[in-house]
Amino acid sequence: MKRKVCVVITARPSYARVKTALKAIQEHPDLELQTVVAASAVLKRFGKTSHYIEDDGFKIDASVHMVVEGENLVAAAKTTGLGLVELATVFDNLKPDVVITIADRYETISTSIAAAYMNIPLAHIQGGEVTGSIDEKVRHANTKLADLHFVSTQKAKSRVISMGENPEQVYWTGCPSIDLAAAVAKNPALNFNPFDKYGGVGSNFDLQKGYLVVMQHPVTTEYDNAARQITETLYAISDLEIPTFWFWPNVDAGSDQTSGAIRSFRELERQRTNHIHFFKNMEPEDFLRLIINSQCLIGNSSVGIRECSFLSIPVVNIGTRQIGRERGPNVLDCGHSRHEIRKAVETQLKKSRPPQDLLYGNGDAGKRIAAALASAPLSYEKQLQDR
Amino acid sequence: MKRKVCVVITARPSYARVKTALKAIQEHPDLELQTVVAASAVLKRFGKTSHYIEDDGFKIDASVHMVVEGENLVAAAKTTGLGLVELATVFDNLKPDVVITIADRYETISTSIAAAYMNIPLAHIQGGEVTGSIDEKVRHANTKLADLHFVSTQKAKSRVISMGENPEQVYWTGCPSIDLAAAVAKNPALNFNPFDKYGGVGSNFDLQKGYLVVMQHPVTTEYDNAARQITETLYAISDLEIPTFWFWPNVDAGSDQTSGAIRSFRELERQRTNHIHFFKNMEPEDFLRLIINSQCLIGNSSVGIRECSFLSIPVVNIGTRQIGRERGPNVLDCGHSRHEIRKAVETQLKKSRPPQDLLYGNGDAGKRIAAALASAPLSYEKQLQDR
Amino acid sequence: MKRKVCVVITARPSYARVKTALKAIQEHPDLELQTVVAASAVLKRFGKTSHYIEDDGFKIDASVHMVVEGENLVAAAKTTGLGLVELATVFDNLKPDVVITIADRYETISTSIAAAYMNIPLAHIQGGEVTGSIDEKVRHANTKLADLHFVSTQKAKSRVISMGENPEQVYWTGCPSIDLAAAVAKNPALNFNPFDKYGGVGSNFDLQKGYLVVMQHPVTTEYDNAARQITETLYAISDLEIPTFWFWPNVDAGSDQTSGAIRSFRELERQRTNHIHFFKNMEPEDFLRLIINSQCLIGNSSVGIRECSFLSIPVVNIGTRQIGRERGPNVLDCGHSRHEIRKAVETQLKKSRPPQDLLYGNGDAGKRIAAALASAPLSYEKQLQDR
Amino acid sequence: MKRKVCVVITARPSYARVKTALKAIQEHPDLELQTVVAASAVLKRFGKTSHYIEDDGFKIDASVHMVVEGENLVAAAKTTGLGLVELATVFDNLKPDVVITIADRYETISTSIAAAYMNIPLAHIQGGEVTGSIDEKVRHANTKLADLHFVSTQKAKSRVISMGENPEQVYWTGCPSIDLAAAVAKNPALNFNPFDKYGGVGSNFDLQKGYLVVMQHPVTTEYDNAARQITETLYAISDLEIPTFWFWPNVDAGSDQTSGAIRSFRELERQRTNHIHFFKNMEPEDFLRLIINSQCLIGNSSVGIRECSFLSIPVVNIGTRQIGRERGPNVLDCGHSRHEIRKAVETQLKKSRPPQDLLYGNGDAGKRIAAALASAPLSYEKQLQDR
Repeated sequence: MKRKVCVVITARPSYARVKTALKAIQEHPDLELQTVVAASAVLKRFGKTSHYIEDDGFKIDASVHMVVEGENLVAAAKTTGLGLVELATVFDNLKPDVVITIADRYETISTSIAAAYMNIPLAHIQGGEVTGSIDEKVRHANTKLADLHFVSTQKAKSRVISMGENPEQVYWTGCPSIDLAAAVAKNPALNFNPFDKYGGVGSNFDLQKGYLVVMQHPVTTEYDNAARQITETLYAISDLEIPTFWFWPNVDAGSDQTSGAIRSFRELERQRTNHIHFFKNMEPEDFLRLIINSQCLIGNSSVGIRECSFLSIPVVNIGTRQIGRERGPNVLDCGHSRHEIRKAVETQLKKSRPPQDLLYGNGDAGKRIAAALASAPLSYEKQLQDR
Repeated sequence: MKRKVCVVITARPSYARVKTALKAIQEHPDLELQTVVAASAVLKRFGKTSHYIEDDGFKIDASVHMVVEGENLVAAAKTTGLGLVELATVFDNLKPDVVITIADRYETISTSIAAAYMNIPLAHIQGGEVTGSIDEKVRHANTKLADLHFVSTQKAKSRVISMGENPEQVYWTGCPSIDLAAAVAKNPALNFNPFDKYGGVGSNFDLQKGYLVVMQHPVTTEYDNAARQITETLYAISDLEIPTFWFWPNVDAGSDQTSGAIRSFRELERQRTNHIHFFKNMEPEDFLRLIINSQCLIGNSSVGIRECSFLSIPVVNIGTRQIGRERGPNVLDCGHSRHEIRKAVETQLKKSRPPQDLLYGNGDAGKRIAAALASAPLSYEKQLQDR
Repeated sequence: MKRKVCVVITARPSYARVKTALKAIQEHPDLELQTVVAASAVLKRFGKTSHYIEDDGFKIDASVHMVVEGENLVAAAKTTGLGLVELATVFDNLKPDVVITIADRYETISTSIAAAYMNIPLAHIQGGEVTGSIDEKVRHANTKLADLHFVSTQKAKSRVISMGENPEQVYWTGCPSIDLAAAVAKNPALNFNPFDKYGGVGSNFDLQKGYLVVMQHPVTTEYDNAARQITETLYAISDLEIPTFWFWPNVDAGSDQTSGAIRSFRELERQRTNHIHFFKNMEPEDFLRLIINSQCLIGNSSVGIRECSFLSIPVVNIGTRQIGRERGPNVLDCGHSRHEIRKAVETQLKKSRPPQDLLYGNGDAGKRIAAALASAPLSYEKQLQDR
Repeated sequence: MKRKVCVVITARPSYARVKTALKAIQEHPDLELQTVVAASAVLKRFGKTSHYIEDDGFKIDASVHMVVEGENLVAAAKTTGLGLVELATVFDNLKPDVVITIADRYETISTSIAAAYMNIPLAHIQGGEVTGSIDEKVRHANTKLADLHFVSTQKAKSRVISMGENPEQVYWTGCPSIDLAAAVAKNPALNFNPFDKYGGVGSNFDLQKGYLVVMQHPVTTEYDNAARQITETLYAISDLEIPTFWFWPNVDAGSDQTSGAIRSFRELERQRTNHIHFFKNMEPEDFLRLIINSQCLIGNSSVGIRECSFLSIPVVNIGTRQIGRERGPNVLDCGHSRHEIRKAVETQLKKSRPPQDLLYGNGDAGKRIAAALASAPLSYEKQLQDR
């Protein structure tokens, strides 16, 4: 009997992060993949990730609308509660042998609780890291609900163990997002025209002359500042006058403020945004290719920390969102003022390309995860281990 | 401005456990108490704890029906999801400055998530302990979602810290359940007639000749065995032929099996249960008084571990439910067979009374908790601390 | 392309009522059956109808736990809300061409709203009847949400039309419950031993000497009286001293009161219930066979009104639950006092067998429903038609 | 004892519609007002109606986030289910004597079901009207769940009665929206500058030279066409080259398409929208004043049918949304093509001002509603009455 492995995907970046693990599970002779798509991953406003998943050859076993609307944090709590109610039904109908929850988005705890409470062994990807904001609480709560741990770094492994987890159930696999980066890096040319393929708004520009990429999400514990923070970055980028691809934020408390601030800036400072092109979404490979060919990634996306350390891309990391996360020599941190941001970008552009750092894996995380899922003893009982 | 402290009570034993803390918060000049009653605490089937709470002089600010029916574990997950959805609304309307979540029942994580996601500082009572079953996962996940920790034992304190919590936010207060035990122990005579006051079913008996008390809950990770396990205990007790007070289990996956098994046993083996009297519920003080005057407490309730260590009451602790919890010299553990249970009770009855052990506190936990709530810096941001 | 017909079954009696329609849909060359089982139909406490459905050869496409526990009416509202949330997901995944909602239980409106709001044509079975209690509101609200109407009586048809429905969409099919009754009536001998096959509690008796059957549900608008009402019936039946099969009530606000009152009566008046045997549940055919061979059906079940009019079985109908429903000459109504009930039973036992009445159909409702589903124009748009 | 009247407001237009009834209830000596704000009425994206309600002197007793996000219809169903779950808790805590549900938005049925199932008498405002789309089903289902009916027109009254309602419980009050219109009409001058007071986007223009107002909502049963339909209207208005105030649509399946289409049009055809100014929201009095001073109202809002018949304002009513609703001589209907719309507006602008029509009331509906709430017998039991 194949083990039924149920992966719950709740957002575009989560999918990007586990795609190679999905593929490796799908191809493993002892595993059967069940794919559940939920939360922002089923919403058109966030690029309807479910379409990409199907296009990539995965069958969707259940899809769940669960995002409760609201510009404040009550909506995040309710979304998670609604997701828990519904994922319980989904698991009751799909009857998986093991469930996978990914990283630390707030709604991932729905997956963790549903599995844990239904006595289904739970595997967690990307535990043991340290950042800021609510993600921090969610990630470690996921660890305490999970039975199997697939971690990205050696330090993450030791942290998960020091939280009382059984060392035999903690697997260093590297981060599966690196797998995709490693694959794309083998053939890195920008083999598509982003303007033609993805539309977006704003003017087109010549890609050969160099460009920046910006991806800045609201920080949920600072969401009242979201509009101000993004506006500072907008000013910094507009001052730099370098062609820039800008990605809209994902769904989070504060994302409406962020989106609203971007829209206002474009209305009010139209000529200042002439060299910026805004995208909603991009296929993960294309996104990586875009970054590989960029001069610098700016914002607070974890892509700057993970994939870019492997890919040797200069990164300006703004604010607190990635605080505490291990980083390679490619990252330069800065605060939220337009001045700091601008200066940091200029510094990065002057430096020579940073060396590759394998701290987040060497490109075979998906296969390692599938192998562990096929061979690990599956249990839903555990006890905190005193050290 | 007084700090608004919102306590969410989801079950009768949880209320018993924090009652003195509620009182101390209510009386503290810098605190304002908000009381939310939810889950089994609003259900008649489980003794409608909300009535006792009001009788004790606490005003209920919101009550929430959230228990989804089901004899299997999917219901526990859904109950928690529904509770999360609703508690978010409750907190949105009550706007507390700090929320308290109690111990480790599965639905307590609803409280924790709602508070954490809404950026309300969260205090957790009774973290850092180790047991079996799903409670284990819930308790430590609560710890990772909480900002303030009120722990019962010194060992619990060191465990919470080793999980990465800031030592300054971890307060050893002792367990507030000991406060009540300490108060009752000052004047321990059985000053009420349990048959008259609480009704129940089964024959009456002479309290002067000594009696046992049984309280055995289903273990959620073994819930398929719940009927068999309770039946073994029923046989052991009926064989002993000592007058016995038996308490129905609280609401949990498996409690219907347990209740059903008790009902069947009473139907089929009517004469064997002649010396057993069944109660649904009892006021906490009365319950403690009943135990203080008993010869032995049998089952798997945490009362046997906590209150009874302070009260010097012999306890026969059955099965895995309290595995890993620190215990005093009053506890004798045994397995689930009727033979083992019977033998353990006989052993305890022969021994002299065990000495008092203060490992779970010295009777002022409620006041310590209130004092900490009034003075601790309140924050909803934290980071795992490497040790 | 076959039309996908999704039937949502939320309770045992609903299943009994539509079983022949399910079979006819399953066998129709132009239809594909989707079966969803929800609410009390998935709960063991109510006989886990889902097992019977599978045993009858239907594949269950989704099952949904949705019953929120509570002895009061807030639970009925929440159950319905939770069901609506979940059935929306189920329909989103199953993508039916038409959904069937059955009769008037409170939770059936979840099905109706989910379908109507998702622009899925909705067919309603058993509209246009008149009774008491909340069912009355639910039934007619279902009618106003539905696009196709399969009614049981000619009077029901004219009522649905006078409520503004398009006469072309209102089909007199008869009630499918009559189909089963008609089939069983062809070979009515009691070909099983109820004590052996169904267990239950209470003493066994000789079936040859005649027996009564009681089935009395709580009335949701009178649920505070539920315990008193059932106790009156218990006294009436115990006074009659005729062997009696008694069925536990289905899940409704008030059913816990009813069940509790039955349990208390059995405890307190044990010898008075010596000639009563209590069952939880019975396969529909067996239940009909039991009734056909009984002397009288007592209580407030719609079976007394519908099936028994076709089967020529004397019925004592107690209280308001069936008020307004058309009835044949087999029914004698009475109030809730033990005296009235006893007298009514005695009257019925003295009379000769009542004639058959076909007002609820002639036994081919299932086939008529399937035929209409295959041929009717399907639309989710309608307007109230002025008459 | 005052009767506690609980009004649930779920959207900005609903509030506008019942504001005078709220005021009359608040001022009535025998009534106590409870105000619950939910759904889009608590969302900033839809103008955060709750702020206006408080500014108008009403205390909000509970607010409920319940909108589930989704561009398709599954979200409407889930929103309604979530609302039902939460409103049950709200009513359980507020314990109203009568609940008021307003008109026919999809989520209003949450209010109706929660009240009906909890045995709370339910009053429905604006039953008995006939339109297109899902509102049609919702409105009449609300009627069948309600015990008291406050209708706007004589024809509506006769329809509610012909659906089987008790004529004594059907009150012709007129529509309370007319009350506000009547009050504003007494002093109709445009006493504020809309550009200054409400901001919005687009160019300013001279109000003295005449202007149009557009308000067009997506039609839920045609939501795939929403973008196309609004684009046609955009072309028609841009061709007319008359200064125009344009209001964004309210939250409904399809509103994202509508909003998106407006945004695209503004991007692509920037110079064509030079004479259009876009608003999110406006205080009801200001909105009425704006309309009174306009040359023509265009779109599919019910304001065109109701208030404008009283106010003698020419209206171009587009498409099917208001189909079946009674209308005065001020309304000219047309289809969705830009050509038809443009022609209809031109026709209206050429005609002389239409006469006042009182079919929707004479301006004292709020007082009539309060009086009926204070004096009507309150019951939650009813039966369909055959005619």
